[in-house]
Amino acid sequence: MKIKMIELTVDANPNAVVSELARLGLWVSPMRDQEGQVRALKVDPASAVVDQATLEAISGVRRVLGGASAHPLVDTLAHRPLKVAGFTFGEVSPWSAEGHDGRSPLLIAGPCSFESAEIVLEVARVVAEAGGLWLRGGAYKPRTSPYSFQGEGAKALTWARRAADRYGLSLVTEALSEEEVDVVSAQADLIQIGTRNMQNFALLKRVGQSGKPVLLKRGLCATIDEWLLAGEYLMKHGAEAVVFCERGLRHYDPSTRNLLDLGAAALMKYQYGLPVVVDPSHAAGRRDLIAPLSRAAIAMGVDGLMIETHPDPGLAKSDAAQALSSEELKELSASLGVHPARAPYQGTETALPFNPNTAEPLSVQRSLS
Amino acid sequence: MKIKMIELTVDANPNAVVSELARLGLWVSPMRDQEGQVRALKVDPASAVVDQATLEAISGVRRVLGGASAHPLVDTLAHRPLKVAGFTFGEVSPWSAEGHDGRSPLLIAGPCSFESAEIVLEVARVVAEAGGLWLRGGAYKPRTSPYSFQGEGAKALTWARRAADRYGLSLVTEALSEEEVDVVSAQADLIQIGTRNMQNFALLKRVGQSGKPVLLKRGLCATIDEWLLAGEYLMKHGAEAVVFCERGLRHYDPSTRNLLDLGAAALMKYQYGLPVVVDPSHAAGRRDLIAPLSRAAIAMGVDGLMIETHPDPGLAKSDAAQALSSEELKELSASLGVHPARAPYQGTETALPFNPNTAEPLSVQRSLS
Amino acid sequence: MKIKMIELTVDANPNAVVSELARLGLWVSPMRDQEGQVRALKVDPASAVVDQATLEAISGVRRVLGGASAHPLVDTLAHRPLKVAGFTFGEVSPWSAEGHDGRSPLLIAGPCSFESAEIVLEVARVVAEAGGLWLRGGAYKPRTSPYSFQGEGAKALTWARRAADRYGLSLVTEALSEEEVDVVSAQADLIQIGTRNMQNFALLKRVGQSGKPVLLKRGLCATIDEWLLAGEYLMKHGAEAVVFCERGLRHYDPSTRNLLDLGAAALMKYQYGLPVVVDPSHAAGRRDLIAPLSRAAIAMGVDGLMIETHPDPGLAKSDAAQALSSEELKELSASLGVHPARAPYQGTETALPFNPNTAEPLSVQRSLS
Amino acid sequence: MKIKMIELTVDANPNAVVSELARLGLWVSPMRDQEGQVRALKVDPASAVVDQATLEAISGVRRVLGGASAHPLVDTLAHRPLKVAGFTFGEVSPWSAEGHDGRSPLLIAGPCSFESAEIVLEVARVVAEAGGLWLRGGAYKPRTSPYSFQGEGAKALTWARRAADRYGLSLVTEALSEEEVDVVSAQADLIQIGTRNMQNFALLKRVGQSGKPVLLKRGLCATIDEWLLAGEYLMKHGAEAVVFCERGLRHYDPSTRNLLDLGAAALMKYQYGLPVVVDPSHAAGRRDLIAPLSRAAIAMGVDGLMIETHPDPGLAKSDAAQALSSEELKELSASLGVHPARAPYQGTETALPFNPNTAEPLSVQRSLS
Repeated sequence: MKIKMIELTVDANPNAVVSELARLGLWVSPMRDQEGQVRALKVDPASAVVDQATLEAISGVRRVLGGASAHPLVDTLAHRPLKVAGFTFGEVSPWSAEGHDGRSPLLIAGPCSFESAEIVLEVARVVAEAGGLWLRGGAYKPRTSPYSFQGEGAKALTWARRAADRYGLSLVTEALSEEEVDVVSAQADLIQIGTRNMQNFALLKRVGQSGKPVLLKRGLCATIDEWLLAGEYLMKHGAEAVVFCERGLRHYDPSTRNLLDLGAAALMKYQYGLPVVVDPSHAAGRRDLIAPLSRAAIAMGVDGLMIETHPDPGLAKSDAAQALSSEELKELSASLGVHPARAPYQGTETALPFNPNTAEPLSVQRSLS
Repeated sequence: MKIKMIELTVDANPNAVVSELARLGLWVSPMRDQEGQVRALKVDPASAVVDQATLEAISGVRRVLGGASAHPLVDTLAHRPLKVAGFTFGEVSPWSAEGHDGRSPLLIAGPCSFESAEIVLEVARVVAEAGGLWLRGGAYKPRTSPYSFQGEGAKALTWARRAADRYGLSLVTEALSEEEVDVVSAQADLIQIGTRNMQNFALLKRVGQSGKPVLLKRGLCATIDEWLLAGEYLMKHGAEAVVFCERGLRHYDPSTRNLLDLGAAALMKYQYGLPVVVDPSHAAGRRDLIAPLSRAAIAMGVDGLMIETHPDPGLAKSDAAQALSSEELKELSASLGVHPARAPYQGTETALPFNPNTAEPLSVQRSLS
Repeated sequence: MKIKMIELTVDANPNAVVSELARLGLWVSPMRDQEGQVRALKVDPASAVVDQATLEAISGVRRVLGGASAHPLVDTLAHRPLKVAGFTFGEVSPWSAEGHDGRSPLLIAGPCSFESAEIVLEVARVVAEAGGLWLRGGAYKPRTSPYSFQGEGAKALTWARRAADRYGLSLVTEALSEEEVDVVSAQADLIQIGTRNMQNFALLKRVGQSGKPVLLKRGLCATIDEWLLAGEYLMKHGAEAVVFCERGLRHYDPSTRNLLDLGAAALMKYQYGLPVVVDPSHAAGRRDLIAPLSRAAIAMGVDGLMIETHPDPGLAKSDAAQALSSEELKELSASLGVHPARAPYQGTETALPFNPNTAEPLSVQRSLS
Repeated sequence: MKIKMIELTVDANPNAVVSELARLGLWVSPMRDQEGQVRALKVDPASAVVDQATLEAISGVRRVLGGASAHPLVDTLAHRPLKVAGFTFGEVSPWSAEGHDGRSPLLIAGPCSFESAEIVLEVARVVAEAGGLWLRGGAYKPRTSPYSFQGEGAKALTWARRAADRYGLSLVTEALSEEEVDVVSAQADLIQIGTRNMQNFALLKRVGQSGKPVLLKRGLCATIDEWLLAGEYLMKHGAEAVVFCERGLRHYDPSTRNLLDLGAAALMKYQYGLPVVVDPSHAAGRRDLIAPLSRAAIAMGVDGLMIETHPDPGLAKSDAAQALSSEELKELSASLGVHPARAPYQGTETALPFNPNTAEPLSVQRSLS
């Protein structure tokens, strides 16, 4: 039960109770009756979480009131590792003075969209070499303009599945439409719900019904409660599990594309005990901030990092300016100390199937406008 | 020069130029003439920073345009360590795979307000023992309500100075009023400008005139540019230096008091090369998130952490619910691997001058209401 | 063409050009070359709209650059009345010193959800008597929690169609799911896309394919450009027309549920010339502010008002606290001077088919929690 | 007392109480004990205001709890006209179906800054001719950059006083610095606190001590409660009265400079009964939206409109692009039906003291950059 109200006994000393609550990290405001007597204390939502018994043991507290959790199914995921397609979210060891102990958060990387079989193979190889365990990318792309590149569709899913399999990666990819859920579900290990669909309830139900685990991106201005309830939609309709992905909020300063809310990620991780992934690529929208924000997210205790990469960012059909090149991804991964659960990929695939030098540049239409 | 526009040659292939720019991390939008020809590319502010020569070397680029820096004096602080009162901001080593190398960011800690000589002495001792180098706290408090505790005033400055001196700490404290600047300046090593005064231009001028270095907190919804220009006011009127402090933005989710904008801190640190401190206490407003956000800030590369602490948070006259106890501060500091430049304080001051057990609880008025 | 950049001649006097542009309402910033010469002026998006010829006639202006409209199909709706199901959006006369001339904006009213055949009939009668021309309400409800009432579904559409027909009203109702589009399209005169689905691109495509006109609510934190592009998705896929509905933005002050952005509505109406409806019920979320915000919207020049009403708000299954009672709706309508294009409904239906006195109260679960 | 909590009797039917409260416009959430019994209902701040006796008369309600007003002095201004310098805020008649009855809200107009004696005289004449009762403008200007024009200072106050007197206007002007309060107070009828100083508590105290009435602009992201408490600071320190001015909030869409929050203005006017002025010039930041937003504000019930004007906006040293020309101001005023309490100024001053044709254009530095 989330505690929202503390009733006082008739003879309570409100000041003493308030002091005791402050010691425990609770912000409260006095609720007075008509005579001005403090009869209860309302608990501010930004308070630390304290268990009921501790509060009821305080002298002057008559009873605590609150609300049942609004997301009982999501709560079943709390405070335990979550195994998806052979890899586990939530096994990060507690951070310590000695630093990260080697059980890394998962690296999830890939292109904005799966543009061709060759590019996807090349990316998968690079991701595996960088110690990544998951390939990400889109076959169906949510684009602000109907005239922008909308993704390669169903065939791109087969490219991605094949590439992931060849390099021992799991696959996460987005379902945009109710109609596509079956085909996405057939190929993906983890189905992504994108930021703009976090409250597309019809899609949440349909994806839930697939039974697959889901990576749920936070909406552009979603509250934590709305995010949790979107997860509850998925679970109620059958999703095996939900991994929550913070990717930055809409904000008013154009210097970064979005505002990464690491406090929300910390809350999801530590107050709710849920699996949390951070996407610094979409948050910053600028290549030069991906490394520092990645370090921050890992140190905060995140279970995974989701990074955009492309063999030649200059030719990417979407999000080009924020994608890391293959070399940059490997450098980032090395600098983060990503130690994969398995040995890095050591295959014999040396031929580069994608040759950026002969590929054709795209229309300027794709750029932000 | 901040590059904002890229003019193309008459025979440029805009697509090829856009690709090249994407490779460098630039988001651009095409500027067309009446015939629909792309004549220039507008650079989105969320782009990575690239030097002018690199851009001008691209085939098809005629000329780059931009604006002179709007804050030339702040720019003089960039990319160099900043020594203030014997301690240096900006000497953090680059983060590496091996982790933090021991040259810690500075720990700045203290109570929300300097409530009595005894409490301040006790806090200073604890801060020193925790490896902190700076004592923080307020003699004059900016409070939303005129009926809230407004700070102990000038006498509290002398308590703080004495306590800082006894334990070898430097002192940072806020000036709220133009009239108080001289008295604050006489005692403080670093004058704080609070969040609500970031664009109090009269105060910025007056504090600048003191010549002292300044800790400039970011406004509740200030843009990066406004923050830099507030720093420029200080420098133009005489401030020796400015340290920028990110402490969270106003937002719509009540689960945390403010929204910590680590992306902005990263931008200030890596794009502008300026000294940056993060205040996770005000950002989170909840004791249970201070540790993970502190770890994130350090890993991101911050030059200092500013933490609220109180010997007995239950008795603090303001911000009680977010203050760490003395034990909690020491634990946090240890877990962060704070290794002070000097040996931790090993004094013989064993008597606790402040006894929380006999102190009197305060009115419930102080709580959030 | 939206003008975004003004190139100067080599011998231009930038100050003189800036003055001339300010006279026309343009905010600009100088773009300088490496020598500091002003070569171009970037036009701030918050500038008044001025035609190209006027700008090019200014001495010192070499050429204006900009972007083609990103939403050519939406532009075809501009600056003309839009007839939908017999009623016309956009025939409001220009506001004048004499006040409103009698050609009212359209009143669109109805319950949050179509809860029973009886309630819908009763509401339709009241809406007609109040001079309303459109019945609104939901058969499928987007709810934040999966445990909240989700609407009565397909059968509710037939209740609504029958009720609208009996009282000579047109019908607007929301499609939530791609699968429901056909059944909604079969009954509705205007299909609503809800706030949380404004960027549900799969739904936009599917609804567009129905060919029906669409009422497009603005997303919780959508930019004007995103809103226009969502309309473009609808038109590109076949929608006959789009009516834009402003219903308030997510914000940080809990005193109102949302923040009504009348400036955005004014921009859509006067800069873009598009049909605009305002929903003060969702914006304010409080019954006592619906009248003043309705007056404001009408005076601003809106083409329609969308109001929530229920025969007994105390029994409404959703949005109870913001619904007007039947009497309140009639009072509001009278006070706004709504003069319907046709005579008010004068039927002989006197029996109240819905009796609030015998209806059963609902679970407290429906309340905000 | 603001009601925040409703305790239920032991045998209450919570559903029935919730229904009754919804009828009254209250959003509530159930507070349960450990057994899941609903013991109290928390009232959402976005609820309509209902008096205590009505709530306590509901069957099942044991007691209502709340908080005393945090701003008792501001409350003394509520629901009564406020006479300042001969003119009255708050005498607007209730809006009716017949339209505005002739007792207009006050027109407050003038330049962004008082640039010269000649310009101020000219503006004052135009304001008087337009039916305005108040001259506005700044002698001291709060500017984001220290290099922008900072106002003409003390001498500009004497220009403004003389000009106001000659044309029978009252004068409102801003105090930026504690040191300037006396000189501003000596000339102004109403002292303005600017947006960026709304929580400059030292200035609020000092301006309050002058005893003068104050026009308090809302902060860029201030809550209603913070705005009221800033007013309370003024009153507590001696201000005769406070007029509240809504001027738009910081937001994320660059199409308008700020986001006009008419819902907040409505709340201040109708929930709190306070004198409210709206500034559409700063809100929109674009000349073409000033008229529709002005009409909206008047229809909503505002007590005054504050408009920027300049004899030649092209030469204004600040805010040039949003200032109305003299002709535009008169047209706006006529279209709004401004009927001054006194006959429009009919003086014999025909010579234009300011000749825009010979005045010198300013540096491009003043533009947004």
